[in-house]
Amino acid sequence: MIVFDRAVKFEEVDAAAIVFFARFVNYAHEAMEHFFSHVPGGYAGLVVGRRIGFPAVHLDVSFASPLRFGDALRIETRVAKLGNRSAVFHYRMINAATGALAAELRHTVVTSDLRTVTSCDMPADVRALLVQHLEPGDP
Amino acid sequence: MIVFDRAVKFEEVDAAAIVFFARFVNYAHEAMEHFFSHVPGGYAGLVVGRRIGFPAVHLDVSFASPLRFGDALRIETRVAKLGNRSAVFHYRMINAATGALAAELRHTVVTSDLRTVTSCDMPADVRALLVQHLEPGDP
Amino acid sequence: MIVFDRAVKFEEVDAAAIVFFARFVNYAHEAMEHFFSHVPGGYAGLVVGRRIGFPAVHLDVSFASPLRFGDALRIETRVAKLGNRSAVFHYRMINAATGALAAELRHTVVTSDLRTVTSCDMPADVRALLVQHLEPGDP
Amino acid sequence: MIVFDRAVKFEEVDAAAIVFFARFVNYAHEAMEHFFSHVPGGYAGLVVGRRIGFPAVHLDVSFASPLRFGDALRIETRVAKLGNRSAVFHYRMINAATGALAAELRHTVVTSDLRTVTSCDMPADVRALLVQHLEPGDP
Repeated sequence: MIVFDRAVKFEEVDAAAIVFFARFVNYAHEAMEHFFSHVPGGYAGLVVGRRIGFPAVHLDVSFASPLRFGDALRIETRVAKLGNRSAVFHYRMINAATGALAAELRHTVVTSDLRTVTSCDMPADVRALLVQHLEPGDP
Repeated sequence: MIVFDRAVKFEEVDAAAIVFFARFVNYAHEAMEHFFSHVPGGYAGLVVGRRIGFPAVHLDVSFASPLRFGDALRIETRVAKLGNRSAVFHYRMINAATGALAAELRHTVVTSDLRTVTSCDMPADVRALLVQHLEPGDP
Repeated sequence: MIVFDRAVKFEEVDAAAIVFFARFVNYAHEAMEHFFSHVPGGYAGLVVGRRIGFPAVHLDVSFASPLRFGDALRIETRVAKLGNRSAVFHYRMINAATGALAAELRHTVVTSDLRTVTSCDMPADVRALLVQHLEPGDP
Repeated sequence: MIVFDRAVKFEEVDAAAIVFFARFVNYAHEAMEHFFSHVPGGYAGLVVGRRIGFPAVHLDVSFASPLRFGDALRIETRVAKLGNRSAVFHYRMINAATGALAAELRHTVVTSDLRTVTSCDMPADVRALLVQHLEPGDP
């Protein structure tokens, strides 16, 4: 599990005064960018330097409780599943002050060669990082 | 089915030069706002005037093929399920030039009184609109 | 003058319940994309097909009155200045229901060859469109 | 001067593969939120707790050089001018790796009572913070 903390920003709420539901998907990507900071060169090194990307093929989001401007958001990122080329990231998004679950996301990605836009094997260092954060209960 | 057409905008792509995956959720909400334009006063009339909202409780997205800047996006919005207080919107997002499916979303919402932030029955005019666009094959 | 109408969307407000100030710059770009729809192939044809872009070099924004969710926004786009390679777009953003000015922007762009990322002469069809919408009073 | 560091994110570029120009205004607001973290309760405490906001009345942006995904952005925030109710924030946005100026913004705000949406005097602790970061050369 890798933890990423960030506050809800002034512009991230909607006309119902709660965090706009699409923002949670942006948060998930931020958490994934942070997750990959543990590989040398980070996410930008993968995308720009090595031309490796992780486009989404599926996304499942359960919204549990609203967040508001000023709330402290804590995102726990784990790997729910790991294939040769694909992986499922699992994000638990928590109101850090209350411990309440705000949203839970499962984000299926496929390793891709960005030059050809076709799937490819996961680089060894990426796989090593993902293995390290694989959820223990996952068979 | 209500159809909503909009082009992919210059700022909606990411560093892999395809529409950023979270944007599809923004597109879904745009399509829902457009869907509710068929109720008197539209979506803004519901939210601002009548203080009725439709917060998401669940979201399921399958990404089928990438979109790029300049692509014409067509969104077909249907109602996949209809309860007393909840509904599932079903969006098919299509590359209008090629007919290729780009993404498919199922978006579960609950009718809410925005003053108390609790669920409430769906207003009769909203229900009538949703019934009209209920998917025929849905048992 | 080319007029572009669009409603303020649910997600475009901030925690003060008014349109977030940065959004007006997004609106300006939308209005510019719409402005260029009057050139064959539109803005996407310029950027993707002909590899011509218009990066901003300067922006001046005066905020006059707030907009809220549900407001109808009308943007009048004119050309305030026209050089060989540069132009100043002038956007008047108006609350369409009240006629009140919401914001006024002046947006200086330079025609650029996106392959080399260097400035270039404005294509003839682009210039013809801009000349047509040059503000009469501008000396 | 208060320094705020943040990387350019994957989703922040446009179809010309550089940071979308409106994003610099979002960055400015982030830097302002960070600036106010030096007041007890921070920016959220001001807006949500004390109902004090700082709506923009003017914005001036000069774009100097493009930023790309993966670039490290450093924002230096200073106060260029200070009135009884208004202030001008001055942001220098720098490519942290090269030292090159990317953009420079001047952002005029007016202290506002968010309950009445009218201007009000700047709270003493806010003024004290702004005085501390007033640009020396400013007469």
